[in-house]
Amino acid sequence: MHIENLKTCPETKARAGAIRTDHGQINTPVFMPVGTAGSVKSLSPDDLMATGSQIILGNTYHLLLRPGMDIIQSAGGLHKFMSWKGPILTDSGGYQVFSLGQLNKITEDGVVFQSRIDGSKHALSAEISMDIQRVLGSDIVMAFDECTPYPATPEQAQRSMELTHRWEKRSLDYFRSTQPLYGHKQELFGIVQGSVYPDLRKISASILVEMGFDGYAIGGLSVGEPKEHMYEITDVVTDVLPVNQPRYLMGVGKPEDLVHAVGMGVDMFDCVLPTRNARHGIMFTWDGPVSVKAAREKDVHEPLDSNCDCYTCQNFSRAYLRHLFKASELLVYRLASIHNIHFYHELMSGMRQAILEDEFPMFKNDFFNRYDLKRAKDKV
Amino acid sequence: MHIENLKTCPETKARAGAIRTDHGQINTPVFMPVGTAGSVKSLSPDDLMATGSQIILGNTYHLLLRPGMDIIQSAGGLHKFMSWKGPILTDSGGYQVFSLGQLNKITEDGVVFQSRIDGSKHALSAEISMDIQRVLGSDIVMAFDECTPYPATPEQAQRSMELTHRWEKRSLDYFRSTQPLYGHKQELFGIVQGSVYPDLRKISASILVEMGFDGYAIGGLSVGEPKEHMYEITDVVTDVLPVNQPRYLMGVGKPEDLVHAVGMGVDMFDCVLPTRNARHGIMFTWDGPVSVKAAREKDVHEPLDSNCDCYTCQNFSRAYLRHLFKASELLVYRLASIHNIHFYHELMSGMRQAILEDEFPMFKNDFFNRYDLKRAKDKV
Repeated sequence: MHIENLKTCPETKARAGAIRTDHGQINTPVFMPVGTAGSVKSLSPDDLMATGSQIILGNTYHLLLRPGMDIIQSAGGLHKFMSWKGPILTDSGGYQVFSLGQLNKITEDGVVFQSRIDGSKHALSAEISMDIQRVLGSDIVMAFDECTPYPATPEQAQRSMELTHRWEKRSLDYFRSTQPLYGHKQELFGIVQGSVYPDLRKISASILVEMGFDGYAIGGLSVGEPKEHMYEITDVVTDVLPVNQPRYLMGVGKPEDLVHAVGMGVDMFDCVLPTRNARHGIMFTWDGPVSVKAAREKDVHEPLDSNCDCYTCQNFSRAYLRHLFKASELLVYRLASIHNIHFYHELMSGMRQAILEDEFPMFKNDFFNRYDLKRAKDKV
Repeated sequence: MHIENLKTCPETKARAGAIRTDHGQINTPVFMPVGTAGSVKSLSPDDLMATGSQIILGNTYHLLLRPGMDIIQSAGGLHKFMSWKGPILTDSGGYQVFSLGQLNKITEDGVVFQSRIDGSKHALSAEISMDIQRVLGSDIVMAFDECTPYPATPEQAQRSMELTHRWEKRSLDYFRSTQPLYGHKQELFGIVQGSVYPDLRKISASILVEMGFDGYAIGGLSVGEPKEHMYEITDVVTDVLPVNQPRYLMGVGKPEDLVHAVGMGVDMFDCVLPTRNARHGIMFTWDGPVSVKAAREKDVHEPLDSNCDCYTCQNFSRAYLRHLFKASELLVYRLASIHNIHFYHELMSGMRQAILEDEFPMFKNDFFNRYDLKRAKDKV
C-alpha cells in the first residue's frame, strides 16, 4: 500500500495524497469515524456518506464479544453485516483488552481476558487477532501490540515495546501465511510504541519499517500523557517512517490536535470525540466547541453554523437542538453527530486543499487565530 | 374542509379521498405519525418524507410544557421550529392532562394542572387551547374536550359529554373570532364523546355536526374498553357524520384496527404504536409483528421483509438489527421506526388503492388471512 499522488507542504511536513483499497479510494489526510460495535453511534451508512466519511473504523474487541465472529462470518464480513460499502480499518483488539480492564493474564503468547458482557473467557494473540480481522474482512488490519500504559519508566517502556515488536512480527508472518476470506484485499499496518521516550520511538519505528508493513501507526499516545509529549513523539516518529506509505495516529483527537499532527506529516486519524461529544450536546464550530444545551441557546432560531452545509445546519436551529436535548429526544443524538462528523471531515478536507495549494501554514494560522482553545479546553 | 375526490367502496363504508391544506394535500385514508415533543421519536423530517408520511401530529400538552409557547412563537410556529414542511395536526392538550394524572382541578371553565417537568401550574380551557394551537400553527386544530374515562356509568358519560359539548362550542366560537398567526389556513375539528354508549355517541355526533366543524374526530376510544366497543361505536358514529368531511379516529391503533375502522368509513388515524414498538424491537410485517430481538434472528442474514422497500429492509438484515438492539446502539431505534412507520403507510396506501379499484373487501380478507392476530396479541 502506498500513498499516491503525494504532495508535501514546502514549509511543514504536511502531506496530501490518496490510498487505494478495494472498497474505494481514500483522500488524505483523513479522519475515520469510529464504528465501535458495528455502527458509528447514531449514524447510518447513508449519514456517513453524506457527511463525507471515506473510511470507518471497527473495534475487534467489541465485535468479538458481540455479535461474535460466527455471525460476522456467516454475514459475509463486517462490510455486509453493517451495510457499509466503503473501506474499513479494524484495530487488533489489544487496546480495549488493556484499557477496559478485564485482563486476566498476559504472557509471551498473548492475553486472556473476560467478556464484560457475559463473563466468558477469551484469548487474544497475534495469530488470533489476525484470524479475527480476516473474518471481519477489514481493508486495513492492525498488528497486535501492547499499548504501553502511561506513565511507564524507560525500562517498562522498553520491555513493553520489545514484546510489541515480537507480537507484531508474529502478526506479519501469520497474516502473510493466510488469505482474505471475501475476495477483497486486506493490508496490514504496524504500530510504533515506546511511550514518551523519543529514542525508544525511533528504535520502534526503524524496527517496524525493517519488518515491512503496508502502513504505520503511532500507538500509545493520547493515553494520559501531557500534550507536548504527543506532539514531540509524533514529530520524531514521522521523521523515521517511509515517505510513500500511510501514517496513522491512533485515537487522536481534538480538532487542534489534528491540525498539529497533519503539520507533522500524519495522514490518518480516528477518535470517538466527535460522536461522543455530540451525544453530550457539545458541537464543533470553527470558533470552537459550543454547548447547545446552554440556556442562552433556547431562543436562538439560527443554525449552529449558518455557513455549514450539513443536514443539521441546513434544517435545524440551535433552539430546536437545545429543546431536543432537554427532552432527551433520540433524534438529536443523530443530528449532533452528523454535524460533528461533518465538521471533522471539513477540517480534514480544508487541510488537504490547503496542502494541495501550498497554503497549509496559512490554513493552520487561520485555524488557530479563530478556534477558541480555552473554550475547547473547558468543553471537550 | 372537505374530502375531495371521494370514492366509496360499494360493499363497505370504506372511503378514499383527499384533504387539502396549505402545507400540501393528504390522500386518505391516512396514518399520522405522532411527533409528541416536536419530533417523531428518532425520525427526522427527511425520514418521515421517505417513509411516506403526509401529515404528522404534535402534542399541545408536551409542547406547552417544553419548550413553551414563547419559543415556538419566536421560531415562527411548529412547522419552522421542527423543520417539517408538510401538514401538522395538533391535539387540544386535554387528553394528556387527564391521562398523565397531574390534574389539579376541573371546573366549568377548564382545568388546572401541574407540569411534570418542573411542577409549575398551568391552566387549560377551550380558549387557551385555541390560542396555543394558533401559536403552534397546526393545519388542523382539535377542539378542547374531556376524554371520558373508561369505565363510566351512563350518567357519568352523559355529564362528561355535555361538558365536552359546551367546551367544544366555546372552542369553535373562540377559534372563529381569532386569526392564524403565520399566513397559512387552520381548520378546526370537533370531537365526538359519549363513552361506550351508542345512544350518547349518536347524540354527540349530531350536536357537533349541528355546530359545524371542518372535520370530526371520534375521541375516548382505545382507552381500555373491549375491542368490540371500539368497533361498534366507530360504526355508529360514522353513520351520523357528514359524508363529505374528514373523520378521524383518535389514538387508534394496531394494523388490524386500522383495517376494520377504514371499513367503517374512517379517514384519519394516529397512534404511537409503530414508533413505540419499534423502540422495543417489535417490527410489523404482513404476517404479523416480529420481535427482532429474539434469539432465532441472530444469524438470519435476510431483511425483515424482502419485499419491503424501506431504507431498513433495503440495507439491513434481521441479524444486524438484533445485534444493534442487544448492543443498545442508537441507530436501531431509527431503523426500526423507519420500517414500522413505512409499514403503516403501506397498509394505508394499500387500502386506498383497493378502495379506488373497488377491491377493498378482498384487501381486507387477504389482510386477515395473512396477518397473525394471535402473534399480534402476544407481541404488541
